[in-house]
Amino acid sequence: MACLLRAATWRLLPWRGYCSRGTKGELNESFVEALKAVVGSPHVSTAAAVREQHGHDESMHRCQPPDAVVWPQNVEQVSKLAALCYDQGVPIIPFGTGTGLEGGVCAVQGGVCVNLTHMDRILQLNLEDFSVLVEPGVTRKTLNTHLRDSGLWFPVDPGADASLCGMVATGASGTNAVRYGTMRDNVLNLEVVLPGGRLLHTAGPGRHFRKSAAGYNLTGLFVGSEGTLGLITAATLRLHPVPEATVAATCAFPNIRAAVDSTVHILQAAVPVARIEFLDDAMIDACNRYSKLNCCVAPTLFLEFHGSEQALAEQVQRTEEITRHNGGSNFSWAEEAEERSRLWAARHNAWYAALALRPGCKGYSTDVCVPISRLPEILVQTKENLKASGLTGVIAGHVGDGNFHCILVADQEDPEELLRITTFSKQLARHALALHGTCTGEHGIGLGKRQLLQEEVGAVGIETMRQLKATLDPRGLMNPGKVL
Amino acid sequence: MACLLRAATWRLLPWRGYCSRGTKGELNESFVEALKAVVGSPHVSTAAAVREQHGHDESMHRCQPPDAVVWPQNVEQVSKLAALCYDQGVPIIPFGTGTGLEGGVCAVQGGVCVNLTHMDRILQLNLEDFSVLVEPGVTRKTLNTHLRDSGLWFPVDPGADASLCGMVATGASGTNAVRYGTMRDNVLNLEVVLPGGRLLHTAGPGRHFRKSAAGYNLTGLFVGSEGTLGLITAATLRLHPVPEATVAATCAFPNIRAAVDSTVHILQAAVPVARIEFLDDAMIDACNRYSKLNCCVAPTLFLEFHGSEQALAEQVQRTEEITRHNGGSNFSWAEEAEERSRLWAARHNAWYAALALRPGCKGYSTDVCVPISRLPEILVQTKENLKASGLTGVIAGHVGDGNFHCILVADQEDPEELLRITTFSKQLARHALALHGTCTGEHGIGLGKRQLLQEEVGAVGIETMRQLKATLDPRGLMNPGKVL
Repeated sequence: MACLLRAATWRLLPWRGYCSRGTKGELNESFVEALKAVVGSPHVSTAAAVREQHGHDESMHRCQPPDAVVWPQNVEQVSKLAALCYDQGVPIIPFGTGTGLEGGVCAVQGGVCVNLTHMDRILQLNLEDFSVLVEPGVTRKTLNTHLRDSGLWFPVDPGADASLCGMVATGASGTNAVRYGTMRDNVLNLEVVLPGGRLLHTAGPGRHFRKSAAGYNLTGLFVGSEGTLGLITAATLRLHPVPEATVAATCAFPNIRAAVDSTVHILQAAVPVARIEFLDDAMIDACNRYSKLNCCVAPTLFLEFHGSEQALAEQVQRTEEITRHNGGSNFSWAEEAEERSRLWAARHNAWYAALALRPGCKGYSTDVCVPISRLPEILVQTKENLKASGLTGVIAGHVGDGNFHCILVADQEDPEELLRITTFSKQLARHALALHGTCTGEHGIGLGKRQLLQEEVGAVGIETMRQLKATLDPRGLMNPGKVL
Repeated sequence: MACLLRAATWRLLPWRGYCSRGTKGELNESFVEALKAVVGSPHVSTAAAVREQHGHDESMHRCQPPDAVVWPQNVEQVSKLAALCYDQGVPIIPFGTGTGLEGGVCAVQGGVCVNLTHMDRILQLNLEDFSVLVEPGVTRKTLNTHLRDSGLWFPVDPGADASLCGMVATGASGTNAVRYGTMRDNVLNLEVVLPGGRLLHTAGPGRHFRKSAAGYNLTGLFVGSEGTLGLITAATLRLHPVPEATVAATCAFPNIRAAVDSTVHILQAAVPVARIEFLDDAMIDACNRYSKLNCCVAPTLFLEFHGSEQALAEQVQRTEEITRHNGGSNFSWAEEAEERSRLWAARHNAWYAALALRPGCKGYSTDVCVPISRLPEILVQTKENLKASGLTGVIAGHVGDGNFHCILVADQEDPEELLRITTFSKQLARHALALHGTCTGEHGIGLGKRQLLQEEVGAVGIETMRQLKATLDPRGLMNPGKVL
């Protein structure tokens, strides 16, 4: 029956790919009963459709469903679940919004998927201390809605309305990182259920100080650990004052180097730019079509400035001088919220604009990051490789950090095309590594980049990571098969 | 002979305290020969005076000299030294400028002190990438002198001209952290010799990207590890553009709360203040005397702003409005470099100003950090406790981070007074812990705060740290007796 259900689901969701494992029967009846005893019957499911839904993220990695999905309501239940699974040798896969891009939630060894979205309370807001304590299911948009009248906000913005603890787990960043930092810079404390069920507060229980030199940086170890070291059940995050005013601008360039040189000069001039995004000509063309814009089809920077009215005027003026000096043209800025929203909506819809290039196809977003001085050469080479590969792809990126994505659109039914995507992505990642970069600036390693991680950090680096994993998760049950 | 020498040194340097161990004879002749074979005879010393010099930092922790001091000239030698010591079960203590404040270099189990100051080259400056690669002996002032005409600088400033890798090891921060972050935020990659001699590049060899989501954050684990996990032999640091202009200001307040409230309001108003330092009335009085200033003897903020001329004018104006609103008076600002230097020299000489309160005595600087909202109560209580204790002490701190120091001046020959200092410091740290703070914002745990660390992070936190230590240093030979 389970097999039939799975097959049916597979037909309903053809792009999910074939589900090779995750037989319900692997969890015996009494274990499922034990799960129900912890979280209550309505919060456990072994239905194939539910398991399918939890066996994939938004990447092209094929669906690998868990054997059961549970929805704990509080940290005590998470702790009991972890103890139960660990005791029985059952893998545990934490699950947030499922918006990851490297297959981080695929249950490669089956096991229990712990869906944390029912734990969605904002537990404590410390306005004077610029911090907030959230449960794992709170998403970034929910938090910012909650903060609306507080004068503070949480700026890390990976695009998707991801759960904040999911963002912690993947070490997310996004468009605002050039000014406000990544998750690594904005997490003050974490509550983590360790594999055996014990509760760790990485900076000590209830603490929310701004900085510390007390012992090893456990918080930093869990940020970006992709669910492989424990389940994050609460996060204390750093908040920032809402800028008094915001201005957005776009500027087109004759070539990629001119756009990147402008970025370097803007940063060198200490213009505190909040976002500085690069879009290649193909991306601009797609955005024009999809979002009904009328941008010049050329390498383009989308910029955003935060500050006082007076400071903004100066920032915009300096930026315009720099871009003009580098051959930029069509510099246009939008002070009005509506016009600005339209511009950034277009940037945030880049993914859908790319998908619209080939209706019915699926997108895959690669992610690398290089020292900013190496951006021109890798961007130019990537465009050439794209052309040579015959793939449909566009480039967009957080150029202020040296981080960029190539959004590839492919026919999910065409194995040859999918193979070309894999080949192209690996080539891109290796090019980034050759330029002293990283194979992922923000999407994480997940399933797909484990070999690349080895190449990136070398034998001693991998061995050290393996030792840390073995220390914190000796039975290898926390999200197995990921990262390492 | 060694004992006689030690005794003589002890008489020469009475404030060092009594050296209880570190008998040269503990290292046999053949081991010393083996050290010499690695680094060359002139770079090994077992002379008592040299060992004494390396057995203490600037804290009140009694001198505990190593059995030998070695000066490696390159990373290959460090690696060989680590392998040799590990093989023979000899403790290894990394040593930079010896400017630590928590006894981090005391050789509590004897062993070999590895003085890294001969490795002092700036290996690679990447201007466009805002990064630099330095050997461990490069100090922060040397680096900034080297950068003088580059338009970039390294802003982390703990006061002392510490070695940069020493600053990595203690997780240093200081006056600029409110704007530029601490060492945790400014290290991109580390080269580390692991206890057995293997070479780890925490972000992969040669890499200097701005951000990454590739695997566990090994860099973050070694920042602040206080030499207990490995020897840091090179660091890739993040640089920042030199501000176009700088303005300093001071403002006196009727009470502590008004000064802290002003700080919170300045941060909430998103004024990008570069430094915001609190000095209590006693500290101001001491600075007036020592640095021939004429500041109003009251709780005072020292501020510094970085930016364009135009932005600065606005920042200063907003700050003045906020401080006036909070009852601040005597707001005075210094745009001229000379006047500004005089002001900040006074702040940086706070330590010596405090020492001058009791000539011939020695200073001890405590260090805690609390959520900024809790600063008024802990500062008021600390002043009361100071008074009740009968100790001579002043308060200065990086109030924008909630971090402050109490500089206590005591007669090193008076055991009763030293005991009162210990009692007072522990009471202060426990008060910080009770307010959800940390027992150290920037000085580290070292020898003196190990019990406090346990109270801060709890049983699971300590157990996790112990596991990490045991994993990376299974024989417990890297700077033993520190942190845990």
